[in-house]
Amino acid sequence: MSMDAVRLVEVGARDGLQNEALTLPVEVRVALIERLVAAGLRTLEAGAFVPPRWVPQMADSDRVLRHLGQRPGVTYTTLVPNLQGLDAALQAGCREVAVFAAASEAFSQKNINCSIAESLQRFQPVMAKALEQGVAVRGYVSCVLGCPFTGDVPVADVVRVVRELHAMGCYEISLGDTIGRGTPGKARTLIQACASEVPITALAGHFHDTYGMAVANVQAALEAGVRVFDSSVSGLGGCPYSPGATGNVATEELVYLLEGQGLATGVDLAALLEAGAFIDAALGKPSASRVANALRRAH
Amino acid sequence: MSMDAVRLVEVGARDGLQNEALTLPVEVRVALIERLVAAGLRTLEAGAFVPPRWVPQMADSDRVLRHLGQRPGVTYTTLVPNLQGLDAALQAGCREVAVFAAASEAFSQKNINCSIAESLQRFQPVMAKALEQGVAVRGYVSCVLGCPFTGDVPVADVVRVVRELHAMGCYEISLGDTIGRGTPGKARTLIQACASEVPITALAGHFHDTYGMAVANVQAALEAGVRVFDSSVSGLGGCPYSPGATGNVATEELVYLLEGQGLATGVDLAALLEAGAFIDAALGKPSASRVANALRRAH
Repeated sequence: MSMDAVRLVEVGARDGLQNEALTLPVEVRVALIERLVAAGLRTLEAGAFVPPRWVPQMADSDRVLRHLGQRPGVTYTTLVPNLQGLDAALQAGCREVAVFAAASEAFSQKNINCSIAESLQRFQPVMAKALEQGVAVRGYVSCVLGCPFTGDVPVADVVRVVRELHAMGCYEISLGDTIGRGTPGKARTLIQACASEVPITALAGHFHDTYGMAVANVQAALEAGVRVFDSSVSGLGGCPYSPGATGNVATEELVYLLEGQGLATGVDLAALLEAGAFIDAALGKPSASRVANALRRAH
Repeated sequence: MSMDAVRLVEVGARDGLQNEALTLPVEVRVALIERLVAAGLRTLEAGAFVPPRWVPQMADSDRVLRHLGQRPGVTYTTLVPNLQGLDAALQAGCREVAVFAAASEAFSQKNINCSIAESLQRFQPVMAKALEQGVAVRGYVSCVLGCPFTGDVPVADVVRVVRELHAMGCYEISLGDTIGRGTPGKARTLIQACASEVPITALAGHFHDTYGMAVANVQAALEAGVRVFDSSVSGLGGCPYSPGATGNVATEELVYLLEGQGLATGVDLAALLEAGAFIDAALGKPSASRVANALRRAH
C-alpha cells in the first residue's frame, strides 16, 4: 500500500447517537462534535432533519448546527428525507446534506415507507434545490451486503441505486452494510461492481461491526481502491433491526488500521480517545472500541 | 477466493483459559473441549504441562487428557516447555505437543526466562524425543507483529525463529500476534517473508484481537495463502501484558468470516455458540465474540 490519505466521515453524532437509547441534549451533541473536530475529523454528520417523533435523538438539529456555525475546512452534514427537511437544513446554514435510499425493497418499505423508486423520485426536487443553492449532496445506500428482512441483496440492485444517486448529482455515495453481515470477499465484489459504473472516488464504505467483520471489510474496500470511510467514535450506534447490536465501526479502529499501514487520516488518536471518553460518560456505557479499551488500559 | 478448506486450531481450552482470571476444574475443561469437538473442531489445545505455580489454570492437564482419551480424527495438543513437560505429556497419552518461542529477546527473557537461542536449544531434546515417539510437534512464535516491551519486531527476527523451528522438525509454526498490534499490511508482509523460507502449508496464523484487527489480519494471511488459523471459542483469553484486554480472535468470528467466503471449516456455528455459552457461564462473563452476541440477540 503506497503512502496515501484516507478521508474519514465521522457519523457518531448522527448515525451513532440516533441509534442509542438515550436522547442527549443539544449542548452535549455540540460538545461531542467540537471534540471530534479538535481531534482532526473534517467531515462530520451533525444531525438529521426528520420529524422528532420518528427520531427523538435528532430533535433540535437546527440548534446543533447553529451552535457549531461555520468552520473553515470542516463540513457538517445532515440527513434530509425530503424537501421539507432540506429547507430546514438550509435555514440552519447547512452546506452539505445527505439523502438516504436502500438497496432492498423490503427495507425501503419498512424504513421509509415507500419503494426504492419512489424514494429516488422524492430525492429529485431535494437534489435540484440543494445543487441550485450550491449545497453538496451525499447519498447513502443501506443494505448493500444484506437486508434484515430478505437476507442476501443482489449486487445488481445495489449498483442500480448507486448509479441513479450518482446520476442525480450525489458527489459521493456511501455504501452501507447496515446489518454488518458482509465479509471481505463480498465487499470487494460489491466495490468492483459499483466502481464499474461510477468513479471509485465517488464511493465511500460504511460498515457496521455487528458480526465483527467491519475492519476486514474496510480493508477489502481499501484494497479495491476506496479512500473514504464512515465511522463512529467509540463505535456509537447500533441497528434498529438488531437491538443491542454493536454499531458502526469505531473511528478509533479505522485510525489504528489506516495509520498502521502508513495511510494518513489527519486524526489524532489521543484526542479522539478523549472525545470517545466524553460521549461514553454522557451515555453511561462502555466504549465499543477495542482500540480505545486497549489504549486506556495501557495508560 | 476459490472453494477451499481452512483448518481451525481451537486454543480456547489452553491459550484462552490460561489467561482467564478464574481457574476451572478439570470436569469443566473436559466438558468444554467435548462440546468443541461436537461442534466440529478437530485440532484442539487441551492443556499445558507447565508448573501449576506458574499457570494454575492449567493444573491437572494430565487428568484432562485422560478424560478426553483418544478420538479418531481429533488431535488434542498440549504445551510443553521442556523435556520434563514432554514426559508428562507422553504419560498422559498426548500424540501432539507444542513448543513455545518468541521473536523478541525481551519477551523471551521475561516470559520464559532465557534468550531465544537458549529456548531453541532447550527444544532440541524435546523435539528429538517427541519425533522418536512419533509425536507431532507444533511450534509457536510469539510477538511476531510487536513486543509489549520493545515495540516493533523486525520481520527478519521472526523469520529466523520460524526457520529454526521448522528445521528442528515442527510440522507447523503458528505465528502469534501476542499483543494484537498488527495490521493487515504488516501481516501480509510477514507471511510472505516466512513463506519464502518454509512452505506456506507449514504456517498458521494466531492473531489476538486486542485492537480489533484480528479478523482483518486473518483475512490478509488467508489471501497470502495461509490455511490454518488459531482461535478461541468466545474469544477466551487475553494478554498477561495487557490485563483485561480482549484475547484470541473468537472462533465464531473465523467461522463466520471463512464460511461467508465459501471456505469450509467443518464447524457447526450453532453448536459452537452452545460451547461458547457453556464456557461464558462457567467463567461468569459475557462473550467477547460479536458473532455470538449478534446471533444470540437475533434468536
